[in-house]
Amino acid sequence: MPELRKDPVVGRWVIISTDRAKRPTDFTREQVKMRGGFCPFCYGNESKTPPEVLAYRPHPNGGPPPQKDSPGWTVRVVPNKFPALGIEGNIGRQAEGMFDKMNGIGAHEVVIETPDHNLTLATLPEKRVEDVLWAYRDRILDLKQDKRFKYTLIFKNHGEAAGASLEHAHSQLIALPIVPKQVVEELDGAKEYYRYKERCIFCDIIRQETDAGTRVVAENNDFVTLAPYAPRFPFETWILPKRHESAFENSPSNVYESLARALKTALMKMDSVLDNPAYNLVIHSSPVQETTNDYYHWHIEIMPKLTKTAGFEWGTGFYINPTPPEEAARFLREATVDASPAAPQPALV
Amino acid sequence: MPELRKDPVVGRWVIISTDRAKRPTDFTREQVKMRGGFCPFCYGNESKTPPEVLAYRPHPNGGPPPQKDSPGWTVRVVPNKFPALGIEGNIGRQAEGMFDKMNGIGAHEVVIETPDHNLTLATLPEKRVEDVLWAYRDRILDLKQDKRFKYTLIFKNHGEAAGASLEHAHSQLIALPIVPKQVVEELDGAKEYYRYKERCIFCDIIRQETDAGTRVVAENNDFVTLAPYAPRFPFETWILPKRHESAFENSPSNVYESLARALKTALMKMDSVLDNPAYNLVIHSSPVQETTNDYYHWHIEIMPKLTKTAGFEWGTGFYINPTPPEEAARFLREATVDASPAAPQPALV
Repeated sequence: MPELRKDPVVGRWVIISTDRAKRPTDFTREQVKMRGGFCPFCYGNESKTPPEVLAYRPHPNGGPPPQKDSPGWTVRVVPNKFPALGIEGNIGRQAEGMFDKMNGIGAHEVVIETPDHNLTLATLPEKRVEDVLWAYRDRILDLKQDKRFKYTLIFKNHGEAAGASLEHAHSQLIALPIVPKQVVEELDGAKEYYRYKERCIFCDIIRQETDAGTRVVAENNDFVTLAPYAPRFPFETWILPKRHESAFENSPSNVYESLARALKTALMKMDSVLDNPAYNLVIHSSPVQETTNDYYHWHIEIMPKLTKTAGFEWGTGFYINPTPPEEAARFLREATVDASPAAPQPALV
Repeated sequence: MPELRKDPVVGRWVIISTDRAKRPTDFTREQVKMRGGFCPFCYGNESKTPPEVLAYRPHPNGGPPPQKDSPGWTVRVVPNKFPALGIEGNIGRQAEGMFDKMNGIGAHEVVIETPDHNLTLATLPEKRVEDVLWAYRDRILDLKQDKRFKYTLIFKNHGEAAGASLEHAHSQLIALPIVPKQVVEELDGAKEYYRYKERCIFCDIIRQETDAGTRVVAENNDFVTLAPYAPRFPFETWILPKRHESAFENSPSNVYESLARALKTALMKMDSVLDNPAYNLVIHSSPVQETTNDYYHWHIEIMPKLTKTAGFEWGTGFYINPTPPEEAARFLREATVDASPAAPQPALV
């Protein structure tokens, strides 16, 4: 008998197939492979992107200061060459008969995670993953000063099947003039629970999950990685800070190192169990213009691309997940990976 | 400057790229092709599916009555061999710590739209498309008697890229023990508008759109086909009955013929403009256990599969649509197709 499970935050029901659970090898995957060719994100091609808005260039004391848009960087942030939103202008809300529209104001940036075309967030050294997380934070804090922007989304499409148009490891940042409906629903769900229980729902989830252990994938001092109770997708994985914090960018600076380790470990485990799957990664965080709150708890959601979203999902917002999260968590938990050294690099094909 | 537009029913904002609008040839499409091979839905293979729950078998007066699960049918409905939900048992709502679950009770059926492997809803004769619509109605009315089912969804995945696992033309029906969240949101949005205006929002949309004409794709006596104002996907197309009706299955019997023509025309236009794209089709209708209402208006939504849903969409519920609906409507409107005769059949490859 399949099971219907409810996401406790947004109230979304999912169908979990318990009878014929799909194991990692049951999915037709598009394995992410590097094809090479000219790449504007590679070391030495800095002039092929719009001018950088941020870059980390380690340089020895006493040496000349590094030049903008030159090589020598570890992480580099540039405006998207084909932005979904424009940075200049006013919101300009207006009507079109019975309809409503506004100008597409916003920021759209690309975080180039490494100068090396052959590395990924899973294979980069842990310290470099940490740099990427710091770059996210620096950019959010900078864009927060522009009061037109109500929400900043950090996300990553890894592999063509996940919507990536360039294969070089990168994430994206979009600053929006409104808080998206889905984010509002998540905030409202968490707020409602808080009103009733006077506790953060995510803190409660962390407590119940670490006690039970069946859906826990990994854990370190500051973060827990788990398969959520009602995942939309097989092998969907969340990384949550153990200490309550409503917004990613407000995290104490000493946790970025643990987060880099947790993230790299989760991605290495996925690569190992699911054979380098395409995936989407999204940071869920409180709106940037709001003050710290007690009810929302920022976290990362990773969704490997193993199934196709079809008419049923588009029609209902209901998802059919063929892999129970307990099974997914067990596979990922039991995968042995070593996050500390630089892992072997994928071959060019 | 891109434009943000709001869906007036559910309040979902989408980003419409107006600067570099994608035309039909700009998309990397997976063209739907027939590959042949053994198919359980083909004529003569009736024993390879679970026993039929409905079939239309035209037979001459005086001839012997047709046999169940034998050839001679035009449309055949069978239970899904691998159902997402089980038909037997009770809902059994229960807790799992702080989480909520229930048994996966429901019906999951397949509507085989034609015995001929090489035809599609676009290439079937109009009369046969009408049969498919009648089969939808008959099944909804039958399942409605089971009071455990609160919502019945009819949908279609055409082509592998749209999630179809079998290429033979078929639709699916899923009866659910709850009304899905996304449907509730649509109903609530329409209800709110009705409370404020005392008019159906869809009736208002039809009036504004047929007056303006820019987003109209086609029109006949009973139906209007249009590109919605704030579509999530390029070339997303809706078919709405001109006369207010809250539920598909309550439509007067004389409109099924016009609906068959409208649907076949829309799909032929898509095949012509987008070169046989994969698509999802969903019937949006009021919950089956509710009485007729004045605020909701059933309709069909067709979403060709031209782009990949990525991290931004998963993280926000916000969509980036590279083709303004006015452009999409113009391409589809100007495509000349002839819905009345049986169209040429696609070749087997």
